[in-house]
Amino acid sequence: MLDCAIIGGGPAGLTAGLYASRGGLQNVTMFEMGMPGGQITGSSEIENYPGFFDHTKSGMDFMNTWQEQCFAFGLKHEMKKVIGIAKTGKHFTVSIEGGDIVEAMTVIVATGSTPKRAGFAGEDEYFGKGVSTCATCDGFFYKNKPVTVLGGGDTALEEAFYLSNICSDVYVVHRRDEFRAAPPTLDRANRKENIHLITDSVIDEVLGDAMGVSGVKIKNKNGEITELDNTGLFVFVGHDVNNSVLQDSDGNFICDMNDRGQVIVDLSMRTSVEGLFSAGDMRIEAPKQVVSASGDGAVAALQVIAYIQEQA
Amino acid sequence: MLDCAIIGGGPAGLTAGLYASRGGLQNVTMFEMGMPGGQITGSSEIENYPGFFDHTKSGMDFMNTWQEQCFAFGLKHEMKKVIGIAKTGKHFTVSIEGGDIVEAMTVIVATGSTPKRAGFAGEDEYFGKGVSTCATCDGFFYKNKPVTVLGGGDTALEEAFYLSNICSDVYVVHRRDEFRAAPPTLDRANRKENIHLITDSVIDEVLGDAMGVSGVKIKNKNGEITELDNTGLFVFVGHDVNNSVLQDSDGNFICDMNDRGQVIVDLSMRTSVEGLFSAGDMRIEAPKQVVSASGDGAVAALQVIAYIQEQA
Repeated sequence: MLDCAIIGGGPAGLTAGLYASRGGLQNVTMFEMGMPGGQITGSSEIENYPGFFDHTKSGMDFMNTWQEQCFAFGLKHEMKKVIGIAKTGKHFTVSIEGGDIVEAMTVIVATGSTPKRAGFAGEDEYFGKGVSTCATCDGFFYKNKPVTVLGGGDTALEEAFYLSNICSDVYVVHRRDEFRAAPPTLDRANRKENIHLITDSVIDEVLGDAMGVSGVKIKNKNGEITELDNTGLFVFVGHDVNNSVLQDSDGNFICDMNDRGQVIVDLSMRTSVEGLFSAGDMRIEAPKQVVSASGDGAVAALQVIAYIQEQA
Repeated sequence: MLDCAIIGGGPAGLTAGLYASRGGLQNVTMFEMGMPGGQITGSSEIENYPGFFDHTKSGMDFMNTWQEQCFAFGLKHEMKKVIGIAKTGKHFTVSIEGGDIVEAMTVIVATGSTPKRAGFAGEDEYFGKGVSTCATCDGFFYKNKPVTVLGGGDTALEEAFYLSNICSDVYVVHRRDEFRAAPPTLDRANRKENIHLITDSVIDEVLGDAMGVSGVKIKNKNGEITELDNTGLFVFVGHDVNNSVLQDSDGNFICDMNDRGQVIVDLSMRTSVEGLFSAGDMRIEAPKQVVSASGDGAVAALQVIAYIQEQA
């Protein structure tokens, strides 16, 4: 019986593991199929995680220190895929792909969310090297430079507003003839001088070289191609919340979720199920920042420790 | 007119400043009378802030990197004491000691809380060198060693539980003949084999040398002195929430607080007053950890940026 099963190995899961194991829990396992570290390992540079400020280091370098630290206190890592969680009586069963079942007193789910990709030429090649899905993370790297945003919803425009404070011009490209964003949001975007809305258009290709993205080709539905000499492209075409482990075999969620598939938590990262906690990008109102996900992980682990004490 | 006034220069305030200025706000000022950094600068060692894992570095070293980074994007620091905040119309006035008034569109209050000291001999001398007010932070440094806890309330016993998972024995010293903690909590403490409750007693003196604390002298009210060869002493005699800036001249709070004087916030660090945010140890349910306070600061600053955009 595990004291705590942590599902997911990004900043939230790793920090939860650090706090749970350093807090004296003996059997804490983090389930993560890939290399621990999460989305940030795909970034070429990080400058908004407090305490890490070295422009020569990548997201991968950043996570190396984390791993050493988070595993130093006894956290175990299983490279296995969790396919489901169920509460049976007071405890949880964690189902592993292939048929194994692991029992746990508590579970922290921190499987994050995955930004959708749009599918244009060069997107995968330049992801993390000028193609970004996070204005807060990467906007500053384009200070006083023009950037292009792809997307037509509220999130795309909100991120465009964020970028408009930093960048010289923000070109927002949307495939339809009208933006889906709420009218007041759209109205504000129209009033903002350095935001330029481009409808009926898609990104045809992102251009670049060894230094990263150098520009984008925008294609209008009439076939016309405009090349913008931008140094950044931000893609906001939605997120997939990685919540499948919280679905039972009938497809119903085992805890309360909002209508966007995010886990409803309180300030202590408690879900609607006792002993089940969630942390990081998959929870409601997540700011999708490493430091915030990490803060969530710490809180969730401290709650796990207190919860187990109360059961004794 | 400031875009954002940040009150307090600990991890929450510094991170809020980093995110607000890096997010493109031009006029962001952090008001902090002392050296920025907060309580952590008093620690001799930190091992639970993810990404910082160097046993040769102190809390002061830790905060040096933070400061360089947080001021790199335009955050200003005023070494002035804020004595009050008021919302007048859509904006805020921040009153500075000496009579100056600063206007701000938004305010983030992150003035933290201060653990009370008990007043025994050696407490100040060995604070951060074996005398601690944070079991989560410092418990692990006493793995499999005995520790002493001073305090008789729920918090003291909860922290004693946390320590009992890590340390060989936990001696809880309380000056009265009965613990103030809730009966079920006390019952669990009595059942826990390695927690030892010592009533009618105080810490007479903490003993130490150049390496830090080496033991404590416990004095019973009958005058008897017991010397415990402990290497750690945890003091939990309450916290003062530094909330005076949120009180108006009549002593009423300008936003909703709980009955412990902590600011009521939601997951986005919004208070009950529009445009006023709070972050870090002074808010409800704060885990009092650097990484969590820092995560709060990031969230509050992102909300400030969005709020200002919405007002435009």
